[in-house]
Amino acid sequence: MTTLPPEAEPVPVPPPSAHHRVVAAFERLAQVDRPELWVSLRTLEEVLVDAKAVDERVRAGEDLPLAGTVLAVKDLIDVAGLPTAAGGPGFSRVPVTSATAVTRLTGAGAVVLGKTNLDGCGAGPVGTPSPSTAVASAGDPQKSAGGSGSGAAVVVALGIADLALGTDTAGSGRVPAALNAVVALVPTPGLVPKTGVFPAAPSADCVSVFARSLTLGQRALAALTGPDGLDTAVRSWPADVRLGAGERPRVAIPDSAGLAALSGPARRAFGVAVASLTAAGAVVEAIDLSVFFEAGELLRRGGLGDVASADPDGALGGPGVVPSADADGAHCGTLGGPGAGPSADADSTHREVARLRAAAHAALGDCAALLLPTVPDHPDLTEAVADPAGVSARLGTYSAFVNVLDFAAVTVPVAPGDQRPFGVTIAARAFDDQIALDLAAVLTGEQAREPYPPDGVDVVVFGAHLRGQPLHDHLRGARFVAPVQTAEQYRMVLLDTDPPQPGVIPGRTTLDGELWRLSPALFGRFAASLPAPFVLGHVTLDDDTTPLAVLCPPTATGSAPNLDRYDSWRGYLRFASTAGLRSVS
Amino acid sequence: MTTLPPEAEPVPVPPPSAHHRVVAAFERLAQVDRPELWVSLRTLEEVLVDAKAVDERVRAGEDLPLAGTVLAVKDLIDVAGLPTAAGGPGFSRVPVTSATAVTRLTGAGAVVLGKTNLDGCGAGPVGTPSPSTAVASAGDPQKSAGGSGSGAAVVVALGIADLALGTDTAGSGRVPAALNAVVALVPTPGLVPKTGVFPAAPSADCVSVFARSLTLGQRALAALTGPDGLDTAVRSWPADVRLGAGERPRVAIPDSAGLAALSGPARRAFGVAVASLTAAGAVVEAIDLSVFFEAGELLRRGGLGDVASADPDGALGGPGVVPSADADGAHCGTLGGPGAGPSADADSTHREVARLRAAAHAALGDCAALLLPTVPDHPDLTEAVADPAGVSARLGTYSAFVNVLDFAAVTVPVAPGDQRPFGVTIAARAFDDQIALDLAAVLTGEQAREPYPPDGVDVVVFGAHLRGQPLHDHLRGARFVAPVQTAEQYRMVLLDTDPPQPGVIPGRTTLDGELWRLSPALFGRFAASLPAPFVLGHVTLDDDTTPLAVLCPPTATGSAPNLDRYDSWRGYLRFASTAGLRSVS
Repeated sequence: MTTLPPEAEPVPVPPPSAHHRVVAAFERLAQVDRPELWVSLRTLEEVLVDAKAVDERVRAGEDLPLAGTVLAVKDLIDVAGLPTAAGGPGFSRVPVTSATAVTRLTGAGAVVLGKTNLDGCGAGPVGTPSPSTAVASAGDPQKSAGGSGSGAAVVVALGIADLALGTDTAGSGRVPAALNAVVALVPTPGLVPKTGVFPAAPSADCVSVFARSLTLGQRALAALTGPDGLDTAVRSWPADVRLGAGERPRVAIPDSAGLAALSGPARRAFGVAVASLTAAGAVVEAIDLSVFFEAGELLRRGGLGDVASADPDGALGGPGVVPSADADGAHCGTLGGPGAGPSADADSTHREVARLRAAAHAALGDCAALLLPTVPDHPDLTEAVADPAGVSARLGTYSAFVNVLDFAAVTVPVAPGDQRPFGVTIAARAFDDQIALDLAAVLTGEQAREPYPPDGVDVVVFGAHLRGQPLHDHLRGARFVAPVQTAEQYRMVLLDTDPPQPGVIPGRTTLDGELWRLSPALFGRFAASLPAPFVLGHVTLDDDTTPLAVLCPPTATGSAPNLDRYDSWRGYLRFASTAGLRSVS
Repeated sequence: MTTLPPEAEPVPVPPPSAHHRVVAAFERLAQVDRPELWVSLRTLEEVLVDAKAVDERVRAGEDLPLAGTVLAVKDLIDVAGLPTAAGGPGFSRVPVTSATAVTRLTGAGAVVLGKTNLDGCGAGPVGTPSPSTAVASAGDPQKSAGGSGSGAAVVVALGIADLALGTDTAGSGRVPAALNAVVALVPTPGLVPKTGVFPAAPSADCVSVFARSLTLGQRALAALTGPDGLDTAVRSWPADVRLGAGERPRVAIPDSAGLAALSGPARRAFGVAVASLTAAGAVVEAIDLSVFFEAGELLRRGGLGDVASADPDGALGGPGVVPSADADGAHCGTLGGPGAGPSADADSTHREVARLRAAAHAALGDCAALLLPTVPDHPDLTEAVADPAGVSARLGTYSAFVNVLDFAAVTVPVAPGDQRPFGVTIAARAFDDQIALDLAAVLTGEQAREPYPPDGVDVVVFGAHLRGQPLHDHLRGARFVAPVQTAEQYRMVLLDTDPPQPGVIPGRTTLDGELWRLSPALFGRFAASLPAPFVLGHVTLDDDTTPLAVLCPPTATGSAPNLDRYDSWRGYLRFASTAGLRSVS
């Protein structure tokens, strides 16, 4: 987005010492005194052992992106040695192996504090709220913390943990994030392995991240992503992943009917988010959300055709996971008996989901993303306890359809003036996670500089590929990295191409250019379609880096006019335009 | 593989007229008179309407890769307007939409003849063989056709259809292919959408192809692959997909214990296949298959943790899909009642599958693929009818583990001298489909020139990146396309690089090079790591194509010695070696 000054400060690095961070976390734990947030908590001594190991790895020179961070884990996700109760009273076991998500974050330097509470698997949908549904929000003891990841969201909101791992099928990550003013990231379904995560509705389940900042959350997401050889449902980034939404992205928002359910604070927060995006250059377009709500309804009805059809806490207020018993005793069972699951109905369910996806894509049109309220209001705790099913259904209004429609989502807090922060969500089509993250960064004011999809090729352009220039379209989907300046080793000549282009050849001046990151597939297309006389070669920048650049063999320039007097193509174009020497677009 | 002369004839194109092909198919149908192969057959008039449409599209200039081919569809896969009975006596409905796989093949020019018989969903595992289990093989009326895709394999083997769509969970595509001497292709799980396909064990189910040739089958596979927006389990090609196994690929084979179950003909066919691969330059290595068999056993026990745990025909001889009844009447139900499906056991099942996958990868080591017998023997029809469960289990010995281990597979017939053809299978790790196809092409003697993964960037190399040269390793995973010659516009100079390299600059001679296809990610790495003074630019070949090539700006060559006298780097190296002027590797 144009409003992000590329010369701004780099993102803050995490605190240098894991030891100090852990000590502070335990101090904060004692200070807030909210034991109901935890299912199991490790001792200070245990956690300090892990912290020491992290500090030693850092001292040994390892680059640990999450060093110095404290992690909480929702109790649907295995941590070796800690019981996984999955919110169900009768279901508990102590896994010997941690979930992939956990080992990846600890491998990146996070230390695990404990397992956080969640709405129990018997709660809500069948009208038997467990005590854990009574978790109060971080900011107001009279208000609900939301669910199902209540504990995880609150421990991040209270500053006990920097990060928490959650799950999100229909909003279990986003809803509590919104009600506790933290960031929630729900990547495209399948990007993060679900090995060691208690399943709910496999086609919509995601491992999600709660974080104290978008930057930290994105860093965690990067560490979490990629096949683990265990979860067969893991999806890879497509080779043509979009790394940027371009200069003036179109962003869809619900039309007035779609926003009718909003409370005053939610409406004000949503208005602030719309204004922020517009101010940053986005073009906002109201769309009809009917088909999105229909998809949420499908999930709520349990019509997904998965083994289970709602998240284990029944956050949807529909038929979720019900307790059942087998030979091993009571545990959180799954919806359906004989004849459930794939059968005559499975195919029609898939087609129904497909129809809804196609319709949602059509409704989104050429919009890069969809800005949503995360929840319509912030219910009182007493109301949530009295009518968990009704409240859950209401809270899922704007979240239930996202995963089932194969969208990625980022929830960030927005502060509407004098109001308490309220979450909004940016949802984007599968694998457009970076688009959602960039738009969310506009709302938090963060510099989300590290792209989430890891693969890409950096290319410097000097002429008609620059922003606003005639061939810039060849970089559609690429990500602007930075304006750059070459070392004093180049000059430009004016080539007789259509459109006019500079030929960058050896010389004695510096040149201004733009550094872009292209997806592997886009880079392949870009290279293959680069017309003669241009070539891709390494250019030396003033910081001594040598990325690829669009250059020109000096022998191919013939008697092209010298542009030695200009240090950028734009500089020449301004001159040419002023002098009327050449009509340029 | 080195034995494939790149100058050989292009692959034969399908017959030009769909009309004639359809008429011939119906003649052949009448001639063989095997109505038990079909569940439903369209009329000649109906099929000719489709054929006419294809012929008109071709005349209008459309490039239809499957024009002039006739397609049969296993009755687990929806064809709009034809009943899908899924092999179950009580389950039948007429879908209004065809499966994605069907619409993709018809979109590519195939015309559907009808739905083929399969082992019924109540057959085999519960000891109640349906009449359809008595299908005889194409080559011998005393022998079993295998299952569950018996009808599909036989109609291709008998020349009625060119292609058939099947399904393969544990061997239902490969086993009947092997017993009827046709090609079966089972792509990496998830590459081909399963929308409109009756599910069995989702984590191992694949849409498979039966084909009269490997080339045609691969063409069908290419048309079938890619997301359809409907099936959420579809996986994309990774950006770094391997497009070639290199010069002397290592191929694993079972050790003697692993081959103990083979009959004489199966053993001889396997020996021929080993000899063919070795002659083509492969290095064969015997490995212990225990862990593979263990994975097959897991599937057989129904331990996959899927909703159903075996293919609907119970080809495994284990607990498969059992008939059940619901309000809509009897249909093919799925295994398991309350408490089945994801639950306390799901995670341990995933870990068990993961352990087996890791162990299988380790057992495979640095081998690019695993050559397997497809079946241990060819059972008599009477035996298959008398003991369907036992025979099914035995036939699945070498196929049951492949999909669950996340491998791709290609089954091709091999003729052991005077023997009847017998199938062998090349299995390769997920997304290494091209490796399996290339090795299979060695066995069939076909020129599989069209790569299956669609994305890739073609690059011509002239120097140290050539095969056998010091930097050839930079092309690891790339696919050799062809030797090429430039137009008479170039010459070489000898650069003072390490290793020595030619600088290709404008001149007046032709130069020999090699054209390679790189995956998008490999191309990105290749470009980014190309050292100065080299650049990537377009080269003009003698056929007037202009692929990218590794070139050198003439200004960067300084006073480099002229190599005008040589039309290839290898030619110069031979001279240099002979003349003792320079030590070259």
